[in-house]
Amino acid sequence: MSRTLIIGASGQIGKKLTRNMLNDGQKVAALVRDKNKLSEFDDANLSIIEADLTKDFEHAFEDCTQVVFVAGSGGNTGADKTILIDLWAACRAADYAKNNDIKHFIMVSSIGADAPSSGPEEMQPYLVAKHMADEHLVQRGLKYTIVRPGTLTDDEPSEQITTERPSNKDDAKITRADVAKALLYIVKNPADSNLVTELFNGNKSIAQALK
Amino acid sequence: MSRTLIIGASGQIGKKLTRNMLNDGQKVAALVRDKNKLSEFDDANLSIIEADLTKDFEHAFEDCTQVVFVAGSGGNTGADKTILIDLWAACRAADYAKNNDIKHFIMVSSIGADAPSSGPEEMQPYLVAKHMADEHLVQRGLKYTIVRPGTLTDDEPSEQITTERPSNKDDAKITRADVAKALLYIVKNPADSNLVTELFNGNKSIAQALK
Repeated sequence: MSRTLIIGASGQIGKKLTRNMLNDGQKVAALVRDKNKLSEFDDANLSIIEADLTKDFEHAFEDCTQVVFVAGSGGNTGADKTILIDLWAACRAADYAKNNDIKHFIMVSSIGADAPSSGPEEMQPYLVAKHMADEHLVQRGLKYTIVRPGTLTDDEPSEQITTERPSNKDDAKITRADVAKALLYIVKNPADSNLVTELFNGNKSIAQALK
Repeated sequence: MSRTLIIGASGQIGKKLTRNMLNDGQKVAALVRDKNKLSEFDDANLSIIEADLTKDFEHAFEDCTQVVFVAGSGGNTGADKTILIDLWAACRAADYAKNNDIKHFIMVSSIGADAPSSGPEEMQPYLVAKHMADEHLVQRGLKYTIVRPGTLTDDEPSEQITTERPSNKDDAKITRADVAKALLYIVKNPADSNLVTELFNGNKSIAQALK
C-alpha cells in the first residue's frame, strides 16, 4: 500500500490532514520537529519521523510514494525562517522527491504566490518565498499539485468549496479544516495532469470542485 | 554604442564599477534609489535612473544591451529585504532582461551560493536568496555570467586574482576594487558561453584568470 509523507504534520493544517488520512485508513509518514506534538495519535498506519527542516531530511522520503508539503515557518518567526522553511526546505523537498522517485508532490502554497508584487506590502517577502518554491517544484519534472488557499480561518468546515476566486476580496477565504479535507481528496484522487489551483469556501462539494 | 545597465550603481562595488566603466569610455545606465548618491559623477556617458527595486523597474532596461546586477540589501537590513532585493529584484531583473532582449546578464552572486546548506548558519538565508536568484537567471535562457566573489574586503586592489578557491579558507577573499575591475573586464570581454565563476585575490592578471 502506498504511503504519504506529510511534511509539517504537526501544523494547523498538517495535523488535520494527518487525522483525515488515518481515519481513512491511509498510511502516513509524519515529518515533525517534535514528535510529542503528535502524541494524541495512536495508529498502526502512522510513522512519525523527527527531523529539522533546516537540516537534511531526505531519509523521511524512504518508502513513500506521495508527498504533501504543508510546513510553514509560522506567522511569529522572522523572514530568515521564511527563507529557510517556506522556501529552502520546500525546494529541497522537491529535490529529495525527485531523487526518491515520488509519484506526486502536493504543495500547499498561498493565494498571491503567483504574483508577489501585487500582494499587500507586508506579505510580499512571504509570497516571494512561496512563489520561488512553487517555481522550483514545477521545474523538477515531478507530477505536482499546487494548492493556493485563500485567507485561512479556523471556522467549522463546510465541505463546500470553489477553485474560482471570489470577486469580493472578503470572500476569498477558506477554513483550515476544508483545506485539509481537500488535501485528502487530492491525495486519494491525483489529477491526471499537473495542477495549480486556488481554493476558497464556495458552493460545490470537494469532489465537484476538484474533479 | 552599447550601453550597460548597472543595477545597484551606488553600492560599494557598484560605484567602483561605474567609475571604471566611465573611465574606460563606456556608456552606463546607473540604476539607484537616490541619485544624490552619484552626485560625484559628471560624465556625458552616464545616465542616472532613479528607481525602487521593490517596485517595477523595467523602464531602466530601455536601450541597454548588457546588465550587471550588483544590488544588495546590505548587511544592516532584515531578511525581509534580503528576499525583496537580493532574491526578488534579481529575479525580476532577469525577467526584464529577457523581455528586453538583453545580450548578456552579469550577476554578482556570492561564494557559497552554490550550496547554501553548507554555509555558516547565520549566512544561510542570504545564501539561499542568492542561490535561488542564480537558479532563476540560469533558467531564463539569457546569456549569463555569474560571479561569486569570496569574502569582500576594502583593501587596495592588487589586480591579481584567481578563479580557484584557495585551500585555506582565510585566503578565500577579494577586494571590492578587484571585483569591480573583474566586472569591467567581463563587460568588455563576454565569454562565448555561459559562465559561473568564483573570484578571489590570487596570482594571475584579471585577463589571464578570466580568459
